[in-house]
Formats: sequence, structure tokens, C-alpha cells
Amino acid sequence: MRFFSDNAAPAHPRVLEAIAAANRLDTAYDGDEWSQRLDGAFSDLFETEVRAFWVTTGTAANCLALAALCPPYRAILCHRDAHIEVDEAGAPAFFTGGAKLILLDGAGAKLTPAAVEEACDRIRDDVHQVQPATLSITNATEYGLTYRADEVAALGELAKNRGLNFHMDGARLANALASTGEHIADVTWRAGVDALSFGFVKNGGLNAECLVLFRTELADEIAVRRKRAGHLLSKGRYLAAQILAMLEDDLWLDNARAANAAAQTVAGAAPNRLVYPVEANEIFLKVSDEEAERLRKSGFDFYEWGPGQIRLVTSWDQQGEALDQLAAAIACL
Amino acid sequence: MRFFSDNAAPAHPRVLEAIAAANRLDTAYDGDEWSQRLDGAFSDLFETEVRAFWVTTGTAANCLALAALCPPYRAILCHRDAHIEVDEAGAPAFFTGGAKLILLDGAGAKLTPAAVEEACDRIRDDVHQVQPATLSITNATEYGLTYRADEVAALGELAKNRGLNFHMDGARLANALASTGEHIADVTWRAGVDALSFGFVKNGGLNAECLVLFRTELADEIAVRRKRAGHLLSKGRYLAAQILAMLEDDLWLDNARAANAAAQTVAGAAPNRLVYPVEANEIFLKVSDEEAERLRKSGFDFYEWGPGQIRLVTSWDQQGEALDQLAAAIACL
Amino acid sequence: MRFFSDNAAPAHPRVLEAIAAANRLDTAYDGDEWSQRLDGAFSDLFETEVRAFWVTTGTAANCLALAALCPPYRAILCHRDAHIEVDEAGAPAFFTGGAKLILLDGAGAKLTPAAVEEACDRIRDDVHQVQPATLSITNATEYGLTYRADEVAALGELAKNRGLNFHMDGARLANALASTGEHIADVTWRAGVDALSFGFVKNGGLNAECLVLFRTELADEIAVRRKRAGHLLSKGRYLAAQILAMLEDDLWLDNARAANAAAQTVAGAAPNRLVYPVEANEIFLKVSDEEAERLRKSGFDFYEWGPGQIRLVTSWDQQGEALDQLAAAIACL
Amino acid sequence: MRFFSDNAAPAHPRVLEAIAAANRLDTAYDGDEWSQRLDGAFSDLFETEVRAFWVTTGTAANCLALAALCPPYRAILCHRDAHIEVDEAGAPAFFTGGAKLILLDGAGAKLTPAAVEEACDRIRDDVHQVQPATLSITNATEYGLTYRADEVAALGELAKNRGLNFHMDGARLANALASTGEHIADVTWRAGVDALSFGFVKNGGLNAECLVLFRTELADEIAVRRKRAGHLLSKGRYLAAQILAMLEDDLWLDNARAANAAAQTVAGAAPNRLVYPVEANEIFLKVSDEEAERLRKSGFDFYEWGPGQIRLVTSWDQQGEALDQLAAAIACL
Repeated sequence: MRFFSDNAAPAHPRVLEAIAAANRLDTAYDGDEWSQRLDGAFSDLFETEVRAFWVTTGTAANCLALAALCPPYRAILCHRDAHIEVDEAGAPAFFTGGAKLILLDGAGAKLTPAAVEEACDRIRDDVHQVQPATLSITNATEYGLTYRADEVAALGELAKNRGLNFHMDGARLANALASTGEHIADVTWRAGVDALSFGFVKNGGLNAECLVLFRTELADEIAVRRKRAGHLLSKGRYLAAQILAMLEDDLWLDNARAANAAAQTVAGAAPNRLVYPVEANEIFLKVSDEEAERLRKSGFDFYEWGPGQIRLVTSWDQQGEALDQLAAAIACL
Repeated sequence: MRFFSDNAAPAHPRVLEAIAAANRLDTAYDGDEWSQRLDGAFSDLFETEVRAFWVTTGTAANCLALAALCPPYRAILCHRDAHIEVDEAGAPAFFTGGAKLILLDGAGAKLTPAAVEEACDRIRDDVHQVQPATLSITNATEYGLTYRADEVAALGELAKNRGLNFHMDGARLANALASTGEHIADVTWRAGVDALSFGFVKNGGLNAECLVLFRTELADEIAVRRKRAGHLLSKGRYLAAQILAMLEDDLWLDNARAANAAAQTVAGAAPNRLVYPVEANEIFLKVSDEEAERLRKSGFDFYEWGPGQIRLVTSWDQQGEALDQLAAAIACL
Repeated sequence: MRFFSDNAAPAHPRVLEAIAAANRLDTAYDGDEWSQRLDGAFSDLFETEVRAFWVTTGTAANCLALAALCPPYRAILCHRDAHIEVDEAGAPAFFTGGAKLILLDGAGAKLTPAAVEEACDRIRDDVHQVQPATLSITNATEYGLTYRADEVAALGELAKNRGLNFHMDGARLANALASTGEHIADVTWRAGVDALSFGFVKNGGLNAECLVLFRTELADEIAVRRKRAGHLLSKGRYLAAQILAMLEDDLWLDNARAANAAAQTVAGAAPNRLVYPVEANEIFLKVSDEEAERLRKSGFDFYEWGPGQIRLVTSWDQQGEALDQLAAAIACL
Repeated sequence: MRFFSDNAAPAHPRVLEAIAAANRLDTAYDGDEWSQRLDGAFSDLFETEVRAFWVTTGTAANCLALAALCPPYRAILCHRDAHIEVDEAGAPAFFTGGAKLILLDGAGAKLTPAAVEEACDRIRDDVHQVQPATLSITNATEYGLTYRADEVAALGELAKNRGLNFHMDGARLANALASTGEHIADVTWRAGVDALSFGFVKNGGLNAECLVLFRTELADEIAVRRKRAGHLLSKGRYLAAQILAMLEDDLWLDNARAANAAAQTVAGAAPNRLVYPVEANEIFLKVSDEEAERLRKSGFDFYEWGPGQIRLVTSWDQQGEALDQLAAAIACL
């Protein structure tokens, strides 16, 4: 039973159905009727005019956004454990043309205004040092913590004052919102976010993610950069249809709620082993090597996460028996 | 009725079925069982050991290959009308880090050894001029012509003598082979090709293309570059499954044969209007503006291709009535 | 006797004296008193506020300017024989991050508004084709022709209407102005030029060129890009001092006049052999291989320039005997 | 009196004389007689065949080397305080096309094999994380410490075992060798270094640095990259002549010894204030803000280096009175 990542889960049946329903002749690239509906659908969701671009990976969404938000000769402030630093093979440098990542500390991979201020202040304001242009946060974080709207807004305010663009990696934004119950507009553009990587693949999508621009004047540049990076699929309708299916009747939120609930079941089995509070769908547990080994032998798959810790991730489709077995196995360690 | 591009056609039912069949939990990225079968399936097809990488666009396949085959400070020789020059938004420069495209002439977008020789000889062998490192051809060409194995081999021999790497853009390679009846190995690696962009999307795929490396020592670099460019999808099995479905029972050849046959039907309606011989699934016709307008009014969609010419492209699914109507409409012009 | 390029000539004595005079302790980089005087000196010369940046090569001046004037995903329109295309080893792609050069034709390496219009019109206005962002011309051209102020202004007007930035490679601008007698302001910013590579090395400098920005808001970006490209020398005063010496009492114009006069002497020896009118300090002659050989044997050095043509370039220091010998040798062919 | 950096010092008279002596017509770029002598002169110095390339800045030397030693999709291991990280405006990312700097800790900006091992071990060996390809150290370090030959050799051995290329930033290598008395070959190629940035400008040069390749097979690539980066000056003889003058009769060592001796004079004035042992020509002192202010008021210029510390750097030309005054002023604090 796999708990190593939500990106291994199957696609939701309604996503597959949407793909099948889109399987007819239409215009190529993003001229089809599904793709043409994206801007409107997301503008409704966000209660403001946005521009939405399907892509197939979070890395593409993140790095296209960063390329538009950070010149090659400037820097992006992010957490030391951010996905863009740790797990994207240097894609931010590739897409931006060499922008630098400046790595900040913060508990649970969360950034605070104080940490950002300090990092900015450390940089000499001269031509020899790379000046920051952009702030990037991940919500939910790489350790499954959520930013509340007011926390994002505090960072957004700081970004504005410092002249920094503001990007949010929302690979698990659905899980964050399912947890906090806040409105997606409040935690993004109303809090100063300029561009959002809105994740669907970890949440029941098949292979469609979405880059949402709140600064719509960047849309033309993003459109070109997407093509130039080989991310303008010729049959875009199969991506757009997935995303529209995820938005319909808030399937994205339902899926995230299911995954979060599964995480709570697991977390509840061993509250004293938790490394971080479980606010989304990731559980980090303190277990010895021997205990980890026992869990594996019981048929559970997960990542080791540094010495004495493991990471389990729950998915939209994980309920019932497997989950109970996992909870029991953890409780019995 | 759309004849403007084969990349607007629907996916083949067996491709959709394969996606549905792959819709279960498996390892992420390319660790799943479908992705793991690709190297073997293509090695069988090509009768030699190859490494195969799924990607979602021809641009990605082309440019990942070119990045591995051409340093940033060298040049790629290609036809003036090559897709990599004309239709990829500068992606080759992005992926290679600034390699130059040197544009060659040739009837029907085909390159000859003489043209390549001449282009090489024109370049002063000093540090001020960008030296060529790579040759790239498209088969079938952007004008629907095919390279025969011996033509490719002549270019391959030249490339070898000149120290050039050799890339083939095979977005419509299936159509070329369905036309010539030659073996895919003879027109690629046996003819000196180092890397092939093997197209499936225009030929009944949904969103999976394949980069095939005959120089397998480049595989590690390609794997990293694919991730770095945001092209390592987390649920790769949905791409691999499509490709395997296309390979099974030579669906890729059947589809190409169907598209080519459709093209012959259209071409046969107006042999004296043909700009190029119709060797694959593209038909370029000489028609006046007024005639083009009449065709459009009859419900046919296509591209204008310079003054007095139009391009029609047939797809794997185009048969019967629509096709006959088009042929009739053209014959009546 | 060397006539193959003006960049082989020695530095003018006053340039060397200026370097010696600057040989005392001062602030590093461009904080020294000489560097600090550049903006003012050039603003006086150009009769408008400019920002001036010393660099050590024309390639650096050209490509730093182009990087600020053209995003990586756009194109630069230039002549097919432009130095940035032919002789800079792909530096424009390196500095811009992959911008494309679109090559235009034009007699004597001059661009006309019609040629620029046509090139723009050929580009489909969609995301698949690289859209032009910048126009670059060379004055005097690579064939020694000059642009008059009204010619530049016509291009500048077109650039403005088309939303193109406008760069001038002025490696031999001094020679052009010495020839036309026009004011440097009229042929640059008053004609719509945004950034100028102002050449000194071919004109008696030692190793200092100057990038002059008429759009001063780009200065901060250029300052960073210069450092990032390794072109911020730590003892900048030795460059600034050279340039100031060249500006003082119009030494730059005197040197150019001397070189131009030398060119007229050579040109006058064989008016019927001239490929282009000699408007600056380059002479292109039609000579047979045998004649070229004879010239070489007489001790004259020059470049062959395609079949049956040779290029001779005169320098600020070439007068008297050697020149008369060359003229005589050419006359006697 | 300026003690803020050795890169503000004047050029040595013999360097200026060499420039004047080179002020005659010769071939352009690096075809002149002075440039042609560089390989031989450095091969003699290093007692092995090397290839030597003049450039005008340490940033250019460092980053051209790194571009040849590290692919865009790999990482360079260096100290957190390394010049390439802190003071080059992101030039390594620009020249390499986006390679990552992985920052290591170590007292006095020195790296140990243990620190390098640990950094390598922390990186997961998969496609998501950027794998290291290159190790870069600075000798003398940014805090004025020297690497002994055996220390470099230990790093070189590790680099070899790990498959890492090895670069040395030798902006102050002369000072290091003047201090340790070791042979330049022992601390570079015999210790496994592949490429060396050999600094002259801080040591009495005017504007010539040298990139020395011990892996001579990289020379062709470096030659192209130098041109492409705008660092191939057209009158290279003025750079080569400077460097040859510095090598002649070991002027480079004499100058470094003078600067080091000056540093010892300063250090001797306040041994208990030293932050690091003074092994080259940089002195880091613990002084209060008030004391720093007093020094400034006495006419001495220097950098603050974090709270409660200042950096003073001595130059080849600093002797006698100014030095005694500084020593006295420090002793009196």
C-alpha cells in the first residue's frame, strides 16, 4: 500500500470521463472550447479577472511563473526545503536564465516576514551581489503546514514594500484550503500573490496543472514562454477538460478533504510521534529504523525523511481498510 | 470539416482505453511498469538497444535531443522551413542555451548533402564564427515529402565525416514510413541518426510523444534535462501507456496508412494543382484566393501557405464522406 | 604593411599618456574619478543626458545593449552580414539568453525601412513564431557605408511604430561621422536610437569601448549585466581615462578623419575596382587571385572577402610612405 | 590612505612599460607575438604543458573555467563566502547556463574534504536533485588563509574519487605562495586542480588576469567561450604584455611578498585583535564601531566586515610611512 506520495494515486473517474468527453476534433493548442473556458472558470473561482494556463507539471507551472517574475540577474527568496530548490533539478535557473535562489530557514518550511526581511538586509545593495526580485512560498508547505490568509498577507505586504514579486507554489493548495476553510481568493491575490501554481495532479488529476496569473499583463509573456519551453501541447483540450472537471462542483476541494481526512486517521494513531502538526495530507513521524522496517514489511511504502523520520502522504482515494491497517500498524509500533 | 492539421484530430480509441487501463496506483514519474517497458518495446521495434523517453510535445522531444547533441556555443544545421526554426518559438535556443540555427535551402524542405557541405564550407574555421555541431532533418518534411533510407544515410555519412551529430524530427515519421514501406531502423540509426523525435500525437495519440536515443550514453543527461525542463510528469504511466498502445499491433503504422490514404484521395482530385508530390498526409495546393474562399464556405478548414497556396492535412480518422466531399469540392474548383 | 584591420593598429600616444596619468591609487571598479566623469562627458557630446559604460570589446557593448533591449524569447532584426551575426561567436544569444537574430538583406550591409517592414510582415503574429523586439544596425556598415541621419531617423520612426527597440553598433561610428560631417546626436538618439556601442579601439584606443544609453532607465540593468558578464574591471580608471582622452579635443574625430583620408588615397588608386563607394575607412576591391597574390608579395596584408574581392582597412596612424606604396601597387595591378 | 582592497592599487611601473613597449602594429586578437608566448611562459612556470588565456577580470577567468567544468544541469561545490557566490553578481549561473552553487561551511572560508564529502552525501542520487560536478576553492581564501599543497591534494584526491572537476580561484594565489613558499605546480595541477584563475590585477597588474588550463583538451572550448562572452579583446597584446612582465624575474612573487610583508606589519600592531591568522595580505580585525570610526577619521579606508570586524588589505606598493601610521593607529586604539 503506497503512502510515499499523492502523485502516485490514480486519476479521479470524473477526470477520466472528462478526457473521454473531449475526445473529438477541435482546434489545436489552446484554441479549443475547453481551453477557452479556463480563464472564465478561474476568474469565477477567484472572484477577480485572472489568466489561466494549463501545463503538465508543477515544475513547469512554478518555473514559468518565476521566469516572468524574476529577471536572470536577480534572486528568488524561498525556503531551504522548497520544492523549487530541492526537487526540480535546477529548473528555476533553467527557466529564468540563471536567477539565484536565496535559501531561508523557517520551521516546517514556512517563511516569516522576519526571515524575509533579514535575508534582504543581509544583501549589500551594490552591483556585486545578486539583489532579490521575487518571493516564493509553498502552501501547503513541504512539511504539510498551511499558511493562513493573514500570514500570506503579511508576506505580501512585505513583498510589496520591498519591491518583490510574489509567487505561490500551490501543488497542495487544495489540501491547505480544505484544512483552513479559507477562501482561495483570500490566501492568494487578496494577500498579494502575483502568480499561483495551482496543483491538480496530486489531487486526482491525470496530467494537468494550472498556472494562474493575477497580474494579467504577464499573460502574453507566459504564453510565449510556455510554447518556448515545449509546454504548449497540441491537443490542449485534454488538459483543460481535466481541470474543468476538477473545478466542477468543487471536486478539487472534495478530493482534498478526503486526503486530509485520511491523514488525520493516520496522525491520530500516533499523536506523540508527529514531527509537525498534520494540517494537510502529509504526516511526518518519528520512527526508528527498526520500526520503519517493520512498517515496510507490513506492506506500507513511504519515504525516509532524514534520520529517524518518515513521511507518509495520503491521497484522495485512500479510505477504508488500507488506511485502518496503516493506522493500526503505526499504533502498534 | 477540419483539414488544417493532424494535431487537431481525436485520440484513437485504443489510446484512450490504454489510459483508462493505466488508471491505478503505481510508482510516480517513470518508475511505473508502463514506463519501464518503453526501452524494451522500442529496442524491439528498432532492432537495436535504444533508450526511450516520453514527453508531451514534439518541441520538447526535438529540443531535449538538440540540447544533448549541440553545445550552447555551436550551431545546428537545418532547413529554413524546419519546424524547429519556424514553429517552436525559439525553443532550440532555450533548451541548448543559445545554440544557433543555420538555415539551409532545399526543395520541399528536404536537405541534400550538397547543401550541407556548402553551408559548412561557408563558415570560417575560427573562433569568431559559430561552428556547426549538429544536423537536423524532418521526416516527413514540413511539405510532406519523405526521405528514403539511402538519402538519410548519405546525410548520415556526411555528418559523420564532418563530426556532426544527427537528429531527426519524426513528428510524421509514421506517415513517411507508411509511404515508403521502409523499415524504421533503416531510415534512422542504420542511416546514422543519433536521436529521433518520434511523433504520436499527430497520429492518434492523446498527449504522448517519444524521444528515442540511439546513442544510449546520452540517456542520463536527457533524463536530467527532461526533469529540469519540467517535462518529467509525475504520473508518467498515462504517457507510456499511450505509446505502448500505439506500438501494439503496429497501430502507429495503421493510423499513418489511413491518413496517407486520405491524402491520396484528396490529391487525386486535383493532380495538376499539387505544389509537391503527396508522399505522406499533407497536401499543398495551388488555389486562388477566390477558390480558397469557396472551399472555406463549403465548410473546409485549412491553412493558407503563402500566396496562392493552401495546406491540407489528413488524419488517421478521416475517411468516407467528409473526404469525398472535400475531393469533390476541390475537383469542382 | 598591415591593412587587414584597424583593430591591429597601435594605440594613440595620448591614450597611452592618459593611462599613465591614471596610474595612481583610486577607488575600484567604476567609482574612480575618471569613470565618474564619463556620463557627463558623453552627455555633453550628445547634448542630452546619457549613461555611459566602459567595456573592453565591441562584442560586450553590443550584447549588453541587446540583452537590455530584447527579451530571451524575442528576436533582433539585423543585416545578414552584421558583426553581431557573423563575427561574435553567438554572443548575442549568450547575453540575451537565446534571443533570435532575424537576418535581412540590403546592399552594402545597409538596412532600409522597406526591408525591415517586410521582415516584420513575414512573421505570423502567434505564439509559435518568434516576434521581433529590436532592430540593430551598424554604422559605418561592415562594408564601409555610412547611414545619414535621415536614413537612421526613417528606421527609428519605423522601429517606434512597430514597437521595436533600436540599437546601433558604432564600432566605426567615428569614421562614419568624419565622413558625413553630421552631428553625433542627429545620427543616434535624435534619430530614435536607444543604445549605442561607441567604438574607440579601432580608432586609436587601447582596450576601451563605450556603451552609451539614451534610455537612461536601463542603466541599472546594464550595470548589473556588465558585472555579471565579467566586464566590470576592478581598475576601471584605465578604461575611462582612455575614453576621456579620445573625447578630449575631438581626438576621436581627428583619428577617424586620418583613417578616412588614408582610405581615399587607396580608393583613388583604383576607382574602377571598388565594390562599394568608400565612405569610411574600408576599401573593398575587385582583384583576381593572381593580383591579390602579387599585392601580398609586395608586403601588403589584407583579408580576402569572397571570390575575387579583397578588403583593406586603413587606420588612424597610416600615412605617408606605406600608403603611397599601397596606392601605387594597386594602381599597377 | 586606502586599505579597502588591493584592486585599487596602481599598476607596477614594469607593467606600464610593457604596455608601452607593445604599442606597435601587430596581429589582432591573440595572434600577436606576446599572446603567442603565454602558453610557453606558463608551461615553464608550471613545469607541465598548460594553455593560458588572458582575460580582464577574475570573474571572467573563474566563470569561463566553471562553464567548461560544469554542465548547466549540475552543481558547483564552493564555500558559502566564496567570491563566485558572494561577489560576482551571479556570473557563474550566467556563464554555465544555470549551474547551481552548493554552499559549504568551513572556518576562514577554507573547505575540508570532510565538508565536501558531507555535502555530496546529502544529495539524493536521483534526477530531481542537482548532482555536483565541480569543486571550486579560493587560494588564498576570502579571509586571507592559504591552502598548503597537501590540503589541496586531499581535496583533489576526493574530487577525483567523486568524479568532480576541480577549479581554483587564485585571485591572490601569488600572496598564498609568497606566504607558504611552496611551488605553484604543487598547489595546483600536481594537487589535482584542472583549471586556475591566476590573478594579476590585485598584484600590480593593470587589467590582465589569466585563466590557466591544466586539462589542455578544454582549450578549444575556452577559446570559443571567451569570444562568445565578449572577452576576446582585439588588441590582446596589451594584456599578454602585462602578464609576461609580471612573470619576468618573478615580479608577481616579489609584489606578493611586499604586500604580505605590509600585512604582517599591520597584523603585528594588534595580534590580539586578529580574527584569522594573517597568512597573505588581508587582515581582519575585531574593532568596535567607535574604534573603526576613529581609524577612518585618521584617514584610513577599509571595509566593515560584519558587526565588530573590519577588513584591511595591503598592496604591492604599500610600504614605509603610510603603513607605519596605520600600524601605530591600530596599536593605539
